[in-house]
Amino acid sequence: MKTLVVAAAAAIVALSAAVQAEDAPFASQIKARQGLMELNALNIGVLAGMAKGETPYDAEKAKAAADALVGVYNLDLPMLWPQGSDNSANPATHALPAIWAEGSDIGAKAENWEKAALAMQGAAGKDLDSLKGAMNDLGGACAACHKAFRASLQ
Amino acid sequence: MKTLVVAAAAAIVALSAAVQAEDAPFASQIKARQGLMELNALNIGVLAGMAKGETPYDAEKAKAAADALVGVYNLDLPMLWPQGSDNSANPATHALPAIWAEGSDIGAKAENWEKAALAMQGAAGKDLDSLKGAMNDLGGACAACHKAFRASLQ
Repeated sequence: MKTLVVAAAAAIVALSAAVQAEDAPFASQIKARQGLMELNALNIGVLAGMAKGETPYDAEKAKAAADALVGVYNLDLPMLWPQGSDNSANPATHALPAIWAEGSDIGAKAENWEKAALAMQGAAGKDLDSLKGAMNDLGGACAACHKAFRASLQ
Repeated sequence: MKTLVVAAAAAIVALSAAVQAEDAPFASQIKARQGLMELNALNIGVLAGMAKGETPYDAEKAKAAADALVGVYNLDLPMLWPQGSDNSANPATHALPAIWAEGSDIGAKAENWEKAALAMQGAAGKDLDSLKGAMNDLGGACAACHKAFRASLQ
């Protein structure tokens, strides 16, 4: 009987953990935007690998990676960043409340990122030197936003 | 001393679990594509809510949701679906090996989905009846792929 009760209790705990994860505030938006960030990281990885000489330069692959960066930006998805969907509402996100605070320059920083991604889109398929030339601004635009608006990852 | 050893062992276990999760095969690709699926689900949710009368019809929001569906498709990301990135390689994904099997009609099913998304893009911003008219094909195209290529979710 005791075993049965314990098993039932364990099942309930497991079930509530699953429900809680699904029902956590902004869970869908956070999962979607983290997926887009992961996608950007993969594409920047393609470009960075070529810039560092770790992988051979391939104009077509470089262009596709840069196109995808711009494509993600152009999805234009404020729906994924509702007010309050920060790391105090749900620890699954590293997004700081500062994003939505008064005076936040998230818009300007996002536009800087767009500029850098567009520059990379123009450069990536041209030749390796052009790609390298566009890499610094792109990396800088990523870092500027992460530094200001992302909780440090342990 | 025993406490220290146990604590150290626990820390190592926790650390390896984290490393393992990061290092799991195709972890980045799976996280990125699941994020895109979540994004599609959010946008289809916007359209379905209007179609069912749960939320008032809003031409601009409907159009933006349909645009995003087409935008995700247009990202054209075979890089997220490398051969072998199925649920036997990594249980974090529900993608079945059948996707990559010989004779797989994943391409045809994806094109059907594109057609349905494009039809929705043309219809969503027009009026509610047009949106409703495009909903069945879109839902059908989602379901056809999930039924054939996604392991059933428990």
